Formats: sequence, C-alpha cells, structure tokens
Amino acid sequence: MPEAVETMDGWYCLHDLRTIDWAKWKQATEQEREQATKELQSMLESWEEVAEAREGSHAFYSIMGQKADILLMILRPTMQELGEIELTFNKSKFAEFTKPSYSYVSVVELSKYMTKEGEVPEENPGVRARLKPKLPDWEHICFYPMDKRREGNDNWYMLPFDERRQLMYEHSFTGRKYAGQVKQIITGSMGFDDWEWSVTLFAKDVLQLKKIVYEMRFDVVSARYGEFGKFYVGNILPIEKIPAYLHV
Amino acid sequence: MPEAVETMDGWYCLHDLRTIDWAKWKQATEQEREQATKELQSMLESWEEVAEAREGSHAFYSIMGQKADILLMILRPTMQELGEIELTFNKSKFAEFTKPSYSYVSVVELSKYMTKEGEVPEENPGVRARLKPKLPDWEHICFYPMDKRREGNDNWYMLPFDERRQLMYEHSFTGRKYAGQVKQIITGSMGFDDWEWSVTLFAKDVLQLKKIVYEMRFDVVSARYGEFGKFYVGNILPIEKIPAYLHV
Amino acid sequence: MPEAVETMDGWYCLHDLRTIDWAKWKQATEQEREQATKELQSMLESWEEVAEAREGSHAFYSIMGQKADILLMILRPTMQELGEIELTFNKSKFAEFTKPSYSYVSVVELSKYMTKEGEVPEENPGVRARLKPKLPDWEHICFYPMDKRREGNDNWYMLPFDERRQLMYEHSFTGRKYAGQVKQIITGSMGFDDWEWSVTLFAKDVLQLKKIVYEMRFDVVSARYGEFGKFYVGNILPIEKIPAYLHV
Amino acid sequence: MPEAVETMDGWYCLHDLRTIDWAKWKQATEQEREQATKELQSMLESWEEVAEAREGSHAFYSIMGQKADILLMILRPTMQELGEIELTFNKSKFAEFTKPSYSYVSVVELSKYMTKEGEVPEENPGVRARLKPKLPDWEHICFYPMDKRREGNDNWYMLPFDERRQLMYEHSFTGRKYAGQVKQIITGSMGFDDWEWSVTLFAKDVLQLKKIVYEMRFDVVSARYGEFGKFYVGNILPIEKIPAYLHV
Amino acid sequence: MPEAVETMDGWYCLHDLRTIDWAKWKQATEQEREQATKELQSMLESWEEVAEAREGSHAFYSIMGQKADILLMILRPTMQELGEIELTFNKSKFAEFTKPSYSYVSVVELSKYMTKEGEVPEENPGVRARLKPKLPDWEHICFYPMDKRREGNDNWYMLPFDERRQLMYEHSFTGRKYAGQVKQIITGSMGFDDWEWSVTLFAKDVLQLKKIVYEMRFDVVSARYGEFGKFYVGNILPIEKIPAYLHV
Repeated sequence: MPEAVETMDGWYCLHDLRTIDWAKWKQATEQEREQATKELQSMLESWEEVAEAREGSHAFYSIMGQKADILLMILRPTMQELGEIELTFNKSKFAEFTKPSYSYVSVVELSKYMTKEGEVPEENPGVRARLKPKLPDWEHICFYPMDKRREGNDNWYMLPFDERRQLMYEHSFTGRKYAGQVKQIITGSMGFDDWEWSVTLFAKDVLQLKKIVYEMRFDVVSARYGEFGKFYVGNILPIEKIPAYLHV
Repeated sequence: MPEAVETMDGWYCLHDLRTIDWAKWKQATEQEREQATKELQSMLESWEEVAEAREGSHAFYSIMGQKADILLMILRPTMQELGEIELTFNKSKFAEFTKPSYSYVSVVELSKYMTKEGEVPEENPGVRARLKPKLPDWEHICFYPMDKRREGNDNWYMLPFDERRQLMYEHSFTGRKYAGQVKQIITGSMGFDDWEWSVTLFAKDVLQLKKIVYEMRFDVVSARYGEFGKFYVGNILPIEKIPAYLHV
Repeated sequence: MPEAVETMDGWYCLHDLRTIDWAKWKQATEQEREQATKELQSMLESWEEVAEAREGSHAFYSIMGQKADILLMILRPTMQELGEIELTFNKSKFAEFTKPSYSYVSVVELSKYMTKEGEVPEENPGVRARLKPKLPDWEHICFYPMDKRREGNDNWYMLPFDERRQLMYEHSFTGRKYAGQVKQIITGSMGFDDWEWSVTLFAKDVLQLKKIVYEMRFDVVSARYGEFGKFYVGNILPIEKIPAYLHV
Repeated sequence: MPEAVETMDGWYCLHDLRTIDWAKWKQATEQEREQATKELQSMLESWEEVAEAREGSHAFYSIMGQKADILLMILRPTMQELGEIELTFNKSKFAEFTKPSYSYVSVVELSKYMTKEGEVPEENPGVRARLKPKLPDWEHICFYPMDKRREGNDNWYMLPFDERRQLMYEHSFTGRKYAGQVKQIITGSMGFDDWEWSVTLFAKDVLQLKKIVYEMRFDVVSARYGEFGKFYVGNILPIEKIPAYLHV
Repeated sequence: MPEAVETMDGWYCLHDLRTIDWAKWKQATEQEREQATKELQSMLESWEEVAEAREGSHAFYSIMGQKADILLMILRPTMQELGEIELTFNKSKFAEFTKPSYSYVSVVELSKYMTKEGEVPEENPGVRARLKPKLPDWEHICFYPMDKRREGNDNWYMLPFDERRQLMYEHSFTGRKYAGQVKQIITGSMGFDDWEWSVTLFAKDVLQLKKIVYEMRFDVVSARYGEFGKFYVGNILPIEKIPAYLHV
C-alpha cells in the first residue's frame, strides 16, 4: 500500500465567487446602492485590519467572463471564523444584488515531499510563514481546483512514494522558473470540498499566468496525473475603485 | 460470480441540505421571521425528545460555502417516519425561505467483511447499538456519498470475496487511527439514492476531517476502487444559536 | 456481428416525477387548494376505472428526498393515450403548483433470452399477462433507468448471444430469490428515452429494495455491464391520503 | 492518416424543442391565447406553402415526457432562412408562453461510403431528392443526436476507409429491413452543433422506432462506435388539432 | 519529460454569448427598446473606431439555435481593456434584456511547432500581424473550445516534441486546403478559461465550416487527441441590421 505523504496545514481558506445582478442593481435606489457599496467597502476595510494584525489575509478581484463577476478569497485561522465571514457577507446589503457562482473551502497546505532526512520543516520559520501567507496585491489572479488522477494505469495514489516525490520535484522546478513573476498558494480540500486541491496564482503580467499553466501541463505530474476544474481569471479590484466599478 | 457480502441494516437516514434565500428572508416581516425561527427550534426540540427516547437521532449544522447553508441529518426506524419529517419540514414557515440544495436517502449499514467464523454479529450488543447510533454533538461534520468503482481492471464487484475483505481490513485499520478524533457513520443507499453509500464524519477539530480523508485516499480500496461525490463540511448549529444565525 | 435478441413489448409506460412548490401552494386560497386536490383525486379515480377494466394500470407514490415529491407511473395500450394523460395532467389545477423533476417514456418489455427451443412465448398466457401488468399497491417503490455498458472490454452488445443468455440467466436467478418480496417491472426505452431500460421495483418492506439491488450488483451482468441512472424511492400515497398529504 | 469520406449536403435543418409554461398560459386572457394560437397556425400554414413549392419542409410534433412539449423540425436551402424563421418564432406571441428545451442545427447529409467506382452520386436524381427531403406526416417521430466514438481502441476516425465502409454497409442493411415502416433523415452537424450527426426517424407504429434503434444497437458501428445523446419521441400535431392541444 | 513548445501571444480575446429575453423585451416600452438599440449600436460604432486605429478588433453575429442569440467576440491589447468592455456591456440598457449563455477568455496564440532552425518568428511581420488580427466581416462564424486529450495511451502531453510537430504539420496541411474559404483564429486559454484553446472560424459559405471541421476530424491530432466543447454557429449581424433584428 503506497505511503501517504504528510502535509502541514495553515490558515483555512474560502474562495467565494459571485455574479452581480445588474438589472436588479439598476432598479435599486441611488441610496440603496450607496449603502450597499459603503457596507462592502467597510467589510473589506475591517479585513484589512485583520490582515495588518497578521490574523488573516484576503484578496478581492473582478473576474473575466460570465462565470462570475467578483472573487473574494479569504484566509483565517479557524473554520468558524470563515463561517462567520460568509454569514456576514450573505446578510449584507450588497449580497442581495448578487447570485452565487462558485465557492471553495480548503486549508493552506504544504506537502513534505521535499523534506530532507533529519529536517523538521514545521520548525522552519519560512515554512511557518508560508502556511499563513499574506496574499499579494498583484494585478491579476487565476484560481482553479484540481485532483490527482486515479484512472487505469494513471493512478497517482498507487505510485510508490519515491516516484511521486520525483515527479513533484520536477514540477516544483518548473514553478521556480516563475519566481518573482507568479506567486502561488496551494490549499488542500479533501474532506472540505469536491476537488482535492485548489491553486491560486497571482501575477503582475496576466500572460505569465497562461505561460506557467501551459508549461506545467507538460510536467508528467500534470500530463498523466492532473485533473483540472474550472479556471477563473481576474483583475484586482482595490477598495477605492469599487464605487466606480459599481457605478451605474 | 463474486459472492455478495451480507449487510446489517439499522435506522433509515435522510440528509437534507438547503440554501437560505437571504433576500427573501430580509423582505419578510420581523414577526414572520420570529415565527419561522421558533417553529424551526420547536421541530428540533421535538426531535431531541425522540433522541432521548432512543427512537431516532439527528444533527443540525451550518454548511461552509455556496453549496448549501444548512444540513439536517435525521435517523428513524422506518422510511415512513422519515417521509413524514420531510413533509413537515417542507410545509414549515422556515422552509419557505430555503431552496433545496441536495438530499440523500439511505440506511445505517454495517458489512460483515470482518465477521469471524462462528460469530453472529447481529447478536453482539455493540453491533446492534452501532446500527441505531446516537449522533455526536461534535463541532464539525463532513458528508459525502461514494461508489465502489466498476471500470476496466478496477472493478470492485468482480473481485473475489477474500480480496475485498483484505482491502476493507486495511481500510478499517486507517480509520481506527482516528478513534476518538473522528466518528464515522456509514449508510448504504443502493436502491434508495444515486450513490452506493454515504459517509458522515464528525470531529471536534475540523483538520482531522481532512487528515482522515487524505490518508484513506492512499488505501487501495479508495485509490483504485473509490468514486466520490460532493463533499459538504460544516460547523454545528445548536438550537440556542439559531436565532443569532438567522438574525438580520 | 452479435445477434440481437428479440423482445416482446406490451403497454406503454410514463413515469412522471414532480416537485411541489410548497410556498406557492400555501399562497393559494383554501378554495384553490381544495379544487386542485379534488381534481387530482378525480383523475386518479378515473384511472382506477381504466385499471379495473384491464385497459391500463398506474401507481402513485410520494418520493423521498429533494429529487421529487410525487411519482405517477402510468401504463396504457398506446403512446397517444399516454400523451393525452400527460396533457390532461399538465393542464390540471394541481400541476400549477408543481415543477417537473424527471420523466421517463418506455414500454413494458420481456426479452426472449430464456425461450426454449420450439416455444412461442407470445402464446403463453402468463407471458401475455406480464406484458400488461397490474401494478401492485405495495407500500414502497424504487425506480431507476439503466444501460448495458459499451466500454472497452466491457461491451455488452459485442458479446455472443450465448454469453449474454448465460449472464441473464444468472441474473434472473438472483431476482427469483426475492419472489413474493419484490415485484419487478422492466420497460424498454431505446428510441423513446435517454437510457435503454427502466426498472421499477415494488416491495412491502423497503429494505428488500436495497437488498435486491445490492445483491444484483455482484451479478456479472451488473458488475461489468450495468450502468445506472438516478434512483428514486418512495412510499405509497393512496387517493384517500392525498388531502392529508397536501394539507397545509 | 485515415481518409475522410466525402459527404453530399442538402437543406439546412433546425430542430427546435420547447416546453410550454402552462401556468402562464392559463393566466393569459382568452383573447391572448386565441391570438397566440392563430399566429402559430398561420406560421405553420405559411410553411406549408413553402413545402408545396418544394423550397423547404417541416414537421410539428408533441413530445412525450417532461423534456419538451413540442418539436418543430424545419428544413431550408440556406442557414439565413433558418435564422429568420427562428427569429420570427422567438418574436411570436406563442413563444412568450414557452421555454427553450433543446435545439439542433445541422444539414441533411448523405455519405459516399456506398458509392461504386465510376458513379457520381450527385448526378443521381434519387440522391438529389434525398438531400431535399419532404418530411412525412407519419404519426410518430424520434429524434436524437450522435457521435462516432473516439476512445482507446474504439476510435472510428482511426479506422481504415474500407473497414468503415464495411461497417456502414452492415448498418444500412439493418436499416433497410425497416423500409416502409421507418423513414430516416440523417443530418450532419460538425461545426454547427455539439454532436456530429442527428437522426430523425418517422414511423406510423411507434413500436417500430424502438425496434429499429434496439436492433441497430447490435450493429458493430453502434455497439463499438456509437455515442448517443438524448432521445425525444413524440406524436404528430397537425395544424387543425393545435387549438384542442392548447385549449385550457 | 516532453518539451513544451513555446507560444507567441497577441491580443486578449473575449467571446461573450447571450440569449435575448424576448418576452421582457416586448414588455419594455418602445422608447426603452429604442434607447437600448441605439446604445448597442453606439458601442459597436465606438469599437469600429478602435478597429480602424488597429488597437483592437471585434465581431458581432446572431447565433443559430437555443444555445445563444448573439455572439460578441472582442480583441484588445490588455486584459484590463477587455474587463472594462465587459463591464460597460453589463451595465448597458440592452444587457438588461439578455441572459448570459457562455463566455470565453483567451489570448490570440501562435505555436512555434513550424519554426525552422535559425528563424525568429517574432521578427516576421506576417507573424506579428497574425497576433493582432483584423477579424473579417464574412457572413458566417463558428466558435468552439477544445483540449488536447490526456487519456491512457492517447496523451498529447506525453508525446515527444517531434511527434507532436509532425501531427501539427499534417493538421495545418488540411487547414491550408481551405485558404480563402475559411479564416481561422486560434486563441490559447490555459490559466484563463476551462478549455485549453478556442477556435473561431469565419466563412462566406457556411457549408465550408462543416467541411473543414469534418475533414480535420480524421487528422490524427483530432481523431486521437482532440476533445471538443460546444459548437456555436451564426450569421453576421451588421450594425445597420440590428434595429430590424430587434424590432418587435
């Protein structure tokens, strides 16, 4: 029986994607729209304070295409806190003008495939920091969930540990080429949501998002063992630009 | 032709997941909301009495993400009782403010893979108790349906009995590592619903839900033969916290 | 080229599953609800007369879970009659308070796999009766559509006739164990609906529905060659209990 | 690289399936319903004139089950004409009371698998007529889209021309058994819609639709290489019966 | 590990497909409809100016069948510009009368499979022009997304570079037969949307769209390695014909 690699787990993570009902938004009074906009900005500002206190992090982007209009990604130390934020958002004025598009529940995860003998990665301050990441305010985001394949001869979970480690090593090598260009957050979601992991990529140049996903597709770990869900790509939506974004 | 293992079957089980229509909820009068909330609490209280009389059991959780807002899991000795509870819930005031998300119909099941020769597990009081389980009031829940795979060379139902028993034994060994951390209810649903089984896990620490699902994914019975449906994860919602949860 | 086995075909069959819009139902006036209920009962009573005249048969059940609330299964000698019944139901007052959930169009079918040499099964009165069955008023129903698999090495339609006959024989053997416990209606639906057959099982004890489906899953004809659609399970809803079922 | 067989292409074809919103229909005034019904009849009558001038053909059927209520199948010499008819239908009064169910865009197609050496099938008047067919007014219709499979060892597009021709020949042999019983229109839809072909069958006896689809399922071209979409079956709805069909 | 071929990337691309809510459109006042129509025409005219300045390109077609009514395809130098156009469209009067059908986010892409040794294709003015294409105003459009297959023995991403190049070469050969008949725009969408590429074909004669897709299906790169999404086919809708198209 193949040996399960251990994981290190950090902050809990909710991706919440919503579509704006523009017709309903336009039917609202100017006052209602202003109230909804200010409440949304206040929520984001209160989360900024949490982020500055290093007790969480979050990102807010507009999403391209019809799959969603906005993406809120939020990290917190406990699942309960995530649940409360989701509930607060659901009860907000702004939420009345949105419809759910997609959501994802997971936890920031680092695997121990690369752990060297004698090393205790949890004691490494760099590792600990990566489990509680500060999300960057880069211009673009790409989010997608994924599985490792279990089909016929292409069954990741039946591979010996050493083969999986080797494939993960090659894969990380591709990722490292994009250091400084693309920042990547991996979250684990077995038991929490329908896919096994989610990947969130941040980039200043949106083309780098395509290039890294494309190049990695040729890594054996993706080519033979990767199954991918929907891809969401978007542009950053800073608090101060929300009124213009929502202005009708 | 492979031999079917016998099962022992206990209480019937309904998982009922619903999404709250928050916009409609806010449009209701304060009085309507209060009526709906109290009626929901009363229903849950009446079920508490049934549970205390050991004539059933139930659990009520808020669900993370957009797939659902609340999960009611309810166990009863007959399918008719489950049908009546579902009907009562459908007719309740609170139900007017919800939309169906997902449901699952099944029966608590224990397989006889581990039965030793000469043993009659039905006579074992511990076994009998497990067929009519008291659901724990632990902080977190994870629910998902599953199939055993029937694809090409990975066909569970074509394996000889002894091979299936061996794989189930290894699998139960992984489960036992989480004793005290994770409580697991298996229900069978062939003929009752679209998947073959459902799994409901309870944990005090939500991370244990991820860890057990992750570790089991490497068991051959999951790696080669498991097909999984949607995963729902949630936080307990005790009766006394319902008014706050629903307050707008 | 494998030889197609001949079939005998009897009454045409419509399964019509609907979900009740309880919020809309409650918004109706008492008078409207009474009118809708009485009209529904009258329709069912008129079909009883058809059944007594042996010119058709039908069944009416409440369905467990969110997939549907009610199932009407109706058998008639012609497709036109089924179409007229469907149209009448669609135009009824009660239908205004329902939403379509699922439907299935098929014809009662018996295969000739078991025909002995020299036999003409169509001349057998028992066979003729089975093609125009009187549906039992047993407490529980289970309905699901299915295909025979055509995938890689598991291709039913590429098997020689004798192998198919042998597998069907073993399968019927499992079925016969449940004689008196489970009554089974097989309908064929190639050219009529999206799956190749539908199976409708009736039982007094709902657990027998699970047991027969479970045990048959190990028959090679199911294990290697069966593909199954959604499963619907329900409790009988006699005409006289409809007012209580619909009372709000 | 396998050689693509040439096709001959005739009239463009739109299948348009709709569901009637009976509740909305009943809420309309008698006058509105009469206007909508007459307009629908006029549209059909104007298409009759086109058909009589041999500049197109069409069929109008009621569909069994919940997948749709009505099917309009319409043939025209150009895609633009089809687009105009669709637009006219969408803007009609009757369309306000319908919801889209399914549609299919294709072109009548004949393959040249059976062409003998030296033959130029386009010069054959019978062939030319089949490319611009007059749809029969037979009692029943069956419509479904299909693909040729491209999976593992069952890849139609990788077979040598001669093997494909042989399989198509056997298949046409099965079809010919139903001459006079079943009339078949094949349309090609690569580049036009989501499946590769559509099949529309007409029969006086609805059981012949099941029998031909069932028997053909054992042809190797179907058994190994056929992938089928949804099946729609229906009863003819002549212009003069529309008022009764729509009467509430 | 197979070597990823490099790509050249040009303008960003949004395909936006919408369905018109004709019932709502007819309920609007004449004045509202006129306002919405003029605003839509103005938007398209402003984009014409961008196209004339060679700072983007766009196409506007009516789509056949129920999958969508209209398709807007728009090319711009940055993802932000695309996002702004989408936002403007969403806020327009006309959008109030439409529902989202499908959208696709990608970037014009040319692969370097055909690059000869010593060549730097980016320096080729013809290549640079193809990355910022002027969309033709041909009568018909066909749009579909696609993947390269990764299944069992048919795994494109596991093929050696030379084999992929050879298969792409043969494929381009089929395409070249349609020069002057069909104009093709390939966009890459890894990291941007759910499929790996999109294909948009333009033709004066709609039958050429079917012929090219059909013939290419026999190319090994499609037969063994192509996975295709939904196909949308349509007729051009020039600005001046919009009022007639929308007139009710």
